[in-house]
Amino acid sequence: MDIVEFTPSLEQYAYTFGGVAPVMRIKPGSVLRLWSEDAFNHALKSIHDLSSEKVDLRYVNPQTGPFYVEGAEPGDTLAIHIVDLTPARTWGVSATIPFFGGLTGTDRTVNLQDALPDTTWIYEVDPARNTVGFQARYGAFEVQLPMAPMLGTVGVAPSGGEVRSSLVPERFGGNMDSPEVRAGTTLFLGVNQEGALFSVGDGHYRQGEGEACGTAVEGAMNSTIIVELIKGQGPAWPRLENDDYWMAAGSSRPMEDSWRIAQVEMVLWYQELFGLHQMDAYQLLSQTTEVPIANVVDANYTVVVKAGKAPLPTVDAFGGMHSELRDRARQFQ
Amino acid sequence: MDIVEFTPSLEQYAYTFGGVAPVMRIKPGSVLRLWSEDAFNHALKSIHDLSSEKVDLRYVNPQTGPFYVEGAEPGDTLAIHIVDLTPARTWGVSATIPFFGGLTGTDRTVNLQDALPDTTWIYEVDPARNTVGFQARYGAFEVQLPMAPMLGTVGVAPSGGEVRSSLVPERFGGNMDSPEVRAGTTLFLGVNQEGALFSVGDGHYRQGEGEACGTAVEGAMNSTIIVELIKGQGPAWPRLENDDYWMAAGSSRPMEDSWRIAQVEMVLWYQELFGLHQMDAYQLLSQTTEVPIANVVDANYTVVVKAGKAPLPTVDAFGGMHSELRDRARQFQ
Amino acid sequence: MDIVEFTPSLEQYAYTFGGVAPVMRIKPGSVLRLWSEDAFNHALKSIHDLSSEKVDLRYVNPQTGPFYVEGAEPGDTLAIHIVDLTPARTWGVSATIPFFGGLTGTDRTVNLQDALPDTTWIYEVDPARNTVGFQARYGAFEVQLPMAPMLGTVGVAPSGGEVRSSLVPERFGGNMDSPEVRAGTTLFLGVNQEGALFSVGDGHYRQGEGEACGTAVEGAMNSTIIVELIKGQGPAWPRLENDDYWMAAGSSRPMEDSWRIAQVEMVLWYQELFGLHQMDAYQLLSQTTEVPIANVVDANYTVVVKAGKAPLPTVDAFGGMHSELRDRARQFQ
Amino acid sequence: MDIVEFTPSLEQYAYTFGGVAPVMRIKPGSVLRLWSEDAFNHALKSIHDLSSEKVDLRYVNPQTGPFYVEGAEPGDTLAIHIVDLTPARTWGVSATIPFFGGLTGTDRTVNLQDALPDTTWIYEVDPARNTVGFQARYGAFEVQLPMAPMLGTVGVAPSGGEVRSSLVPERFGGNMDSPEVRAGTTLFLGVNQEGALFSVGDGHYRQGEGEACGTAVEGAMNSTIIVELIKGQGPAWPRLENDDYWMAAGSSRPMEDSWRIAQVEMVLWYQELFGLHQMDAYQLLSQTTEVPIANVVDANYTVVVKAGKAPLPTVDAFGGMHSELRDRARQFQ
Repeated sequence: MDIVEFTPSLEQYAYTFGGVAPVMRIKPGSVLRLWSEDAFNHALKSIHDLSSEKVDLRYVNPQTGPFYVEGAEPGDTLAIHIVDLTPARTWGVSATIPFFGGLTGTDRTVNLQDALPDTTWIYEVDPARNTVGFQARYGAFEVQLPMAPMLGTVGVAPSGGEVRSSLVPERFGGNMDSPEVRAGTTLFLGVNQEGALFSVGDGHYRQGEGEACGTAVEGAMNSTIIVELIKGQGPAWPRLENDDYWMAAGSSRPMEDSWRIAQVEMVLWYQELFGLHQMDAYQLLSQTTEVPIANVVDANYTVVVKAGKAPLPTVDAFGGMHSELRDRARQFQ
Repeated sequence: MDIVEFTPSLEQYAYTFGGVAPVMRIKPGSVLRLWSEDAFNHALKSIHDLSSEKVDLRYVNPQTGPFYVEGAEPGDTLAIHIVDLTPARTWGVSATIPFFGGLTGTDRTVNLQDALPDTTWIYEVDPARNTVGFQARYGAFEVQLPMAPMLGTVGVAPSGGEVRSSLVPERFGGNMDSPEVRAGTTLFLGVNQEGALFSVGDGHYRQGEGEACGTAVEGAMNSTIIVELIKGQGPAWPRLENDDYWMAAGSSRPMEDSWRIAQVEMVLWYQELFGLHQMDAYQLLSQTTEVPIANVVDANYTVVVKAGKAPLPTVDAFGGMHSELRDRARQFQ
Repeated sequence: MDIVEFTPSLEQYAYTFGGVAPVMRIKPGSVLRLWSEDAFNHALKSIHDLSSEKVDLRYVNPQTGPFYVEGAEPGDTLAIHIVDLTPARTWGVSATIPFFGGLTGTDRTVNLQDALPDTTWIYEVDPARNTVGFQARYGAFEVQLPMAPMLGTVGVAPSGGEVRSSLVPERFGGNMDSPEVRAGTTLFLGVNQEGALFSVGDGHYRQGEGEACGTAVEGAMNSTIIVELIKGQGPAWPRLENDDYWMAAGSSRPMEDSWRIAQVEMVLWYQELFGLHQMDAYQLLSQTTEVPIANVVDANYTVVVKAGKAPLPTVDAFGGMHSELRDRARQFQ
Repeated sequence: MDIVEFTPSLEQYAYTFGGVAPVMRIKPGSVLRLWSEDAFNHALKSIHDLSSEKVDLRYVNPQTGPFYVEGAEPGDTLAIHIVDLTPARTWGVSATIPFFGGLTGTDRTVNLQDALPDTTWIYEVDPARNTVGFQARYGAFEVQLPMAPMLGTVGVAPSGGEVRSSLVPERFGGNMDSPEVRAGTTLFLGVNQEGALFSVGDGHYRQGEGEACGTAVEGAMNSTIIVELIKGQGPAWPRLENDDYWMAAGSSRPMEDSWRIAQVEMVLWYQELFGLHQMDAYQLLSQTTEVPIANVVDANYTVVVKAGKAPLPTVDAFGGMHSELRDRARQFQ
């Protein structure tokens, strides 16, 4: 089994899905230990660094990759199993970028009102308690929040020759900003280009569902992942699996369309898994899914539909890939 | 303490919030034991009953109430604590009503395609296992699902003299279809008219988040609730509390607006609870909220924003009303 | 032919569709000469009157009516032909009400930003030039704009026992804020309650499509209308006709749903008018409709779909009612 | 003055904005006579050609270009004046592609219903009458519709290194599908990459506003355009000008966001043109704009906001570029 370690140099970061030469070729089955920079490209290091002054919006959400997976062809499925996510710094950072976020006008939901105050929050990591510390910027309030590392952005090169900003979530994955993308999850992405060309980035030390202010507790991340290739079976939209759930992620606008996409993808998956008629799959999922919002702040909004495994018969998705990767992952934890 | 039992006669059901004379006057602090009919008004009793033939859409979501709460005035807060929800029949029912639901065109998201097959599913209750049984209608698949009773519809009379269908969720509560409205939850609703005029209905034996096909496992319900009145403090949108979460529910279209409403309501509530500046409340909640979709199928879509109590200091909302009602509820469980 | 003149006293205005006793019973075929107050209820009379201080939001969009039309039953069609609209004052008024309008956060698309400046503009009417005069409030710019009187709000009582604010456009008409509702237009509304119970109000001396800032050049209006009753044929959504166009108005959220509603209503109408198959009606209208936005600022957004009569064969809608009313109108102009 | 004629060979067509090498370098001020293939890439030639069988969705909306404009740098403004559009075939074609269009579920607003019938309509051009002929496919109805040639798609390479499908309208222009893009209009696009790299395609012999069924009367087109370069002043979103209107086009989802974008862009333009304060520009435009929907069927919906020149003082936009190009155009008409 190949174990690949990679820390990009500054000029090696990618800012798009597609349109970038691979940093490396890897074999299916490789274990990758990757370092990724934070979403602000390390521009905000204290509460005195303001996003409007320090953040260059052409260079945010830097991606570690893309990696060329040998043998991956359009129509195939890339399985990315997240073995471990460990914060690579002793602090994380969040900010309310002017005209970015969910409770402000944006470049889409544009208005004529003044921007909210450009503010930066630093969260100190407490390794002993495994927490990040919130400190009010306009008062004395403090509280420790549980560490909950996740990757905001994982994706492959888009179809149709498109190249998309690393700020966008779509069919190819990308900036979904879902807390479900954490250690123990396998992400299944349809391959659109030779080599798949996947990349990861935008580590979050934790994030609320919705990512309301537009940024999580952003931080550099050490990620250990296993990458596998399944011939064919490429799903139209990202599917995810952990020990407890099958999941699908839809990313579009308005948000009801993100939900429709994810819910239909789960209906299709349920039909495959259990041989159900579409109407029965629709009905059964209507009574069982959990549906957390992932983000309401990116170029597309992301909704995740989760179908619990507990009450259902045991079945294998993608040939049992998730279970197999869980087993393999144990030696790296 | 007043204990009131009430089972409506057929002609006593209400089909709107507002515009209906109260069935009864109650004192604040009353315990109510209420019977409510299912959302189809008992029109679907077997898989051979089709919604297009049997359901009269003028008479769905029948409401038990409204109740006139003595002393309730506009600007006050009605607190409704759900003590217990017990299915009142041995079976529940779901259906895909033509042009109703989330994965079909509707009277709003209207299209020219043919309707999905009008299908009815009966779920038998297994009291021993505390489950409801799904049986495929287009195949042989069966599975038992955990019983998880909730009320789809709880609301007060609207403001401004409006009268709204019991199918609509809005500021006044109504058909929010959120699984959070279950035993152990206290619902806080702003009072708009003298007496508040609240009603309940639309019992669900269980429901997935989103209520994808438009109907849950619908069933007649025995509800035990305690109703209290708080002078003033009426929230703009429904707030909810249980032992683990403070919550707000937003209902509008498109769904991102439902989320914006609920998220802002939580920001306002956090400012009150912890004396936080708005920007700090916005930031802190951005990293902590859980955000399940409640429904994507009603006239308005409902999103719930949940803020966990766990990492935060102990504070009392609405003068500690939830804790007090939890204590009182114990003798009725 | 009955000619009815009516100027409401202050306490006679209605603020809802439905839920209000009729001010008068009229016979089908009656000509009504009606006076309506401006949308602000005459609270803003100079640029020094601010909406946040003077406007009581419970009493805006005052309606003249409702009128009980003898013989009107649910399922019938009310035809309202607008003969003449004449400004009843020598000035109109517009304002940017805080958190109301299209380029600001609202109570639905809610955000945390500060409100836009609460500003009032007075437009003097120049009867000789038939214009209203815009005068900048933050500079010296002035320009005369053509007078273009219209009614922002025309509607009947809703179905299902609902009562809706006069600020809401919906199936029953209401606050559609479309410039198409002007002299020469016949509006066809489905009757939902005995007597139809229609009312009019919210006169605009002119308005841009979209009504971007939330208010038009609002003004008291003298309206001359003819009211007719067509048995049966009640359309699901408002239909309009003038000498050049058949039109349908959809009002919902998000705005694509308003469009879908209006476009489908035109497809249905085209099928009736020309005996076309639905797919042919869909195709033909795809190549011919004009589609102005009416408002993006009310509780629901309104889109109008207009199908030009010019290239099509001459046909009669609703038994030629529009032509007949045009003829009758001539003697009152 | 350079006059450039260009008819692409089959392999020269582009299917994206960005990501494609220029077919030619041109000087600012060049007159281009361009041939463009129809949106279906000439795959539908009779009513027996079905889109589901003949159209390869990877190769639709073929673009003639991109052209590298010498001296064009990011931040500049490309002015494209449309001198003449002449149909290049004697027939046009429209089709209802399964799960594409406005009155059907799509890949975004996805549902579980069956697709609408896949149908193709051929429109014969009558050069004498200057019409295209609609013939019903499910009946005998026929009608001649006025020829009204326009370009569905005009755009430049996107910013941020993105590459976007020629089916997408966005900040860079693209597939806006607006009837305003016709002879006599000047389009102003912000330059994002060296050389601007603009292309044109998707000729329509006519189109209703909204392009309801997803396709116009599609046809190969001979386009004569003049291309000019303005240093700096690059607008954030496409601006258009003809003799009667200043216009802005917004493209996003949901449709109210498209409108917000276009309306704000017009507010900004009005502030520049007349030195108005933002609130005065907002107010004045609220009373004057015409707002046609362009498309509700592409990946983004497009709304155009039009501000009439008639009542306003004479001013020059972009240094009077439109007037100048109108003058130059006369010799080529």
